[in-house]
Amino acid sequence: MTEANSRPSDGFHVFDTTLRDGAQREGINLTVADKLAIARHLDEFGVGFIEGGWPGANPRDTEFFARAQAELEFKHARLVAFGATRRAGGKAAEDPQLAALVASGAPVVTLVAKSHDRHVELALRTTLEENLEMVRDSVEYLRAQDRRVFIDCEHFFDGYKANPEYALAVVRTAHRAGADVVVLCDTNGGMLPSGVREIVATVLAETGARLGIHAQDDTGCAVANTLAAVDAGATHVQCTANGYGERVGNANLFPVTAALELKYDRRVLPAGALAEMTRISHAIAEVVNLTPSTHQPYVGFSAFAHKAGLHASAIKVDPDLYQHIDPELVGNTMRMLVSDMAGRASIELKGKELGYDLTGDRDLAGRVVARVKAQENLGYTYEAADASFELLLRDEVNGGERQRYFELESWRTISEQGPNGFAGNEATVKLWAKGERKVATGEGNGPVDALDRALRTALEPIYPALAKLELVDYKVRILEGQHGTGSKTRVLIESTDGTATWSTVGVADNVIGASWVALEDAYTYGLLRVGQQP
Amino acid sequence: MTEANSRPSDGFHVFDTTLRDGAQREGINLTVADKLAIARHLDEFGVGFIEGGWPGANPRDTEFFARAQAELEFKHARLVAFGATRRAGGKAAEDPQLAALVASGAPVVTLVAKSHDRHVELALRTTLEENLEMVRDSVEYLRAQDRRVFIDCEHFFDGYKANPEYALAVVRTAHRAGADVVVLCDTNGGMLPSGVREIVATVLAETGARLGIHAQDDTGCAVANTLAAVDAGATHVQCTANGYGERVGNANLFPVTAALELKYDRRVLPAGALAEMTRISHAIAEVVNLTPSTHQPYVGFSAFAHKAGLHASAIKVDPDLYQHIDPELVGNTMRMLVSDMAGRASIELKGKELGYDLTGDRDLAGRVVARVKAQENLGYTYEAADASFELLLRDEVNGGERQRYFELESWRTISEQGPNGFAGNEATVKLWAKGERKVATGEGNGPVDALDRALRTALEPIYPALAKLELVDYKVRILEGQHGTGSKTRVLIESTDGTATWSTVGVADNVIGASWVALEDAYTYGLLRVGQQP
Repeated sequence: MTEANSRPSDGFHVFDTTLRDGAQREGINLTVADKLAIARHLDEFGVGFIEGGWPGANPRDTEFFARAQAELEFKHARLVAFGATRRAGGKAAEDPQLAALVASGAPVVTLVAKSHDRHVELALRTTLEENLEMVRDSVEYLRAQDRRVFIDCEHFFDGYKANPEYALAVVRTAHRAGADVVVLCDTNGGMLPSGVREIVATVLAETGARLGIHAQDDTGCAVANTLAAVDAGATHVQCTANGYGERVGNANLFPVTAALELKYDRRVLPAGALAEMTRISHAIAEVVNLTPSTHQPYVGFSAFAHKAGLHASAIKVDPDLYQHIDPELVGNTMRMLVSDMAGRASIELKGKELGYDLTGDRDLAGRVVARVKAQENLGYTYEAADASFELLLRDEVNGGERQRYFELESWRTISEQGPNGFAGNEATVKLWAKGERKVATGEGNGPVDALDRALRTALEPIYPALAKLELVDYKVRILEGQHGTGSKTRVLIESTDGTATWSTVGVADNVIGASWVALEDAYTYGLLRVGQQP
Repeated sequence: MTEANSRPSDGFHVFDTTLRDGAQREGINLTVADKLAIARHLDEFGVGFIEGGWPGANPRDTEFFARAQAELEFKHARLVAFGATRRAGGKAAEDPQLAALVASGAPVVTLVAKSHDRHVELALRTTLEENLEMVRDSVEYLRAQDRRVFIDCEHFFDGYKANPEYALAVVRTAHRAGADVVVLCDTNGGMLPSGVREIVATVLAETGARLGIHAQDDTGCAVANTLAAVDAGATHVQCTANGYGERVGNANLFPVTAALELKYDRRVLPAGALAEMTRISHAIAEVVNLTPSTHQPYVGFSAFAHKAGLHASAIKVDPDLYQHIDPELVGNTMRMLVSDMAGRASIELKGKELGYDLTGDRDLAGRVVARVKAQENLGYTYEAADASFELLLRDEVNGGERQRYFELESWRTISEQGPNGFAGNEATVKLWAKGERKVATGEGNGPVDALDRALRTALEPIYPALAKLELVDYKVRILEGQHGTGSKTRVLIESTDGTATWSTVGVADNVIGASWVALEDAYTYGLLRVGQQP
């Protein structure tokens, strides 16, 4: 992992825990590949710290840290390993869990520590004194291994209310032992901003430690609680993308950083990052396979949607009167209802990103907007399917014509499971390419895999470049979840040829039909990008 | 409309505007019948005021007020009509819009008034003086008609920042003219709690008017902003059920009232109402036809869901240490998630939740833990598949034997797309049930739909109870995203028989195989729960 120099100042920490605490959300189950993909998005957004998981606690997190070392090149973030203080009655230097944290190679470690007296007794089953000793010993050990250490004081606010002297003693112990930041955690999420502000201010005055805040959203106030802690002097905020997290969730990274940047006028992200917020929020939702919330502050599809009519003319004169911020600051757009998703401006920006200048041709941009709108009505989404969008854009640039490497005649898949555990999947494609009719059959682990193999068998003799093409990820989303297996299906496919990676989308009333559409785009894009002539 | 005596004290107003402001949410479109149904739910919950719409502005709202007079018998609420101050240059007594408000029969009227100087000039196109006169004249007119009047000062906070003197003049004018409450509206939703608290406190000190708060959620702080206004002396809170509203939404009625009742220890709802919160929140979501948010504070399905493992034994000893409130206070329940961190303690808790006492048989609980772990290694997840978990649990209780309603011989699906756009999906199942061999074929929108239809055709003659079984949701997740279409696939199916809903899971190396496993569990559970004998 190489480290660049463009990190935000250390004076204020935006600390992301999507990969650890966010992954606790009911229904989220991340693979190592998912975690690496999310880490890249978070780094691009410009968070200062990415907590990757608990190395040693399960094989998946251990593997993540190993691969992160090898594969991730962060521009802004530092990788953080999460763990706990050493076990009661032992020594930090001999604790296998702490050894795994060191072995993870992460330059920063967050250690969770108990700060609520009852939790020490009930969950740790040790004495209050030994818990302090565990904090001191663990922090000093990691400092001696040259790790930067943050301490998460679990259940801090409840603990402070129950026994303030003890909660403060934990903060002082961690601080004196060399923890850089002591993070006050509202683990049960029951706090309100006024209480957070008061307690953070008191702890700061009493201990002088650098303080952080970790807020859960059980009262619906996690963002406000985070900001209240900042008001009281905290300089480290722990958040998760889209507020994912256990129970109701965590403080949402996006409204927290937007408020700090736009309302507090405080630079907590790299220049230009804020405008990527909407795209990155949606991209992360795709990776975890949850529909992006249409009503999420700042980044939701509806966040700047105005019912037209009453104030339409006034909005035209001065939109700022009707919006708390300019939506483009966070990469979102104003919409008048009933209206479209894609505006010309965003299409022009997207075209520019892909290397097509559309600003000179308003008519072309308008046609692309119309196509995107029509496709989105059918269930397509281009946020996570750049290659399909680029193909659509090229179609319009080329006067509405798709460059075709093959013409499909038909495909068929058969899946079966028979007696004695026999199971099989087989696909046949019939198509025309360069004037030849090709019929090919493939077998696979599933019907889509079989279809991919049949297509490859048919086309490889004609287009040898396809030998390098590989499907690396495949996602299915059922749209309109109220109709069971009869609903529309959207498939996203990620492909690579070893030098580039691209994503395509297909929609149909079933998973195989949708996969076919996305496969066809994937093959077409793969051939286009190496300059293959049809 | 009859009026009972069980209203909360007038000292604090819980004012609901779901039927007006909530209905502005993108995607919500309420009929008069919907509005009446929601009004009944809100009254049952015990809000003091229900703003029903703008009579005279559209036929639907006019009809709603007419039918509300005739059909609604509120136990707690008063009906409120919403309208605007009279038009510029006219007289309140001759204003048709104000006449419609009076004609609605509602005992309370909320009048929206401009309080931001630029909005007066741009949207109303009148002078600042005339706007004050419109406020005075309109309030006095309605007071003379014996209506109680609340004033919504639109864009108040932005207006106050732009021209505090003018914003205060609007408040004073409304107050002196006889408005009971002057509501400060954060119409653009850009405020944060610290700013709300400061401005509300200042306005209260400067004017002495009774103040209310109306917060939009554009910063993700609407609940906190509402509470900040209460901290500063506001005694009237405007909210919507589930936070429905324009753009991101409004302050959510449920976390606001829960915080006031449980955190502020302030009685703002009738006795017993709080415990109905979860049910009423979900019922209103059903009426507006939106899926209840699983992660909504207090009332969400996940709001008190704990990933067990580490702390399960401590949760058993004292759940209050791990929850900010007792979920039963708001009509919700604690749930233990069966996840890969499952230990015996959490399996015992989960068993208890499903009605199985496993505490007496440590061996049995241990076997269930082992099965869950083995299945999770294969890619299963039971967090969102209670029915599959219960089947697994019953298997172990019954000595490892699954109760089988049918024995599969084979299934086969064929999907094809031919020339001229032909596309089709067909499935055949062969199975044994009650000694009979059944062969059936189904066609569907996709291969899984076809499989479901074939299975239903085969089994319904033998088990007529299956006629009521319906698949209502279907989710697909590809596991281990590094292997493309050859990866493992997990399918979650939600089924209903009209009285209950249950979820099942299947994992296989392809989507159809996984769907088959989840379908088999869904059918088995559906038959088990109605007491069907195999």
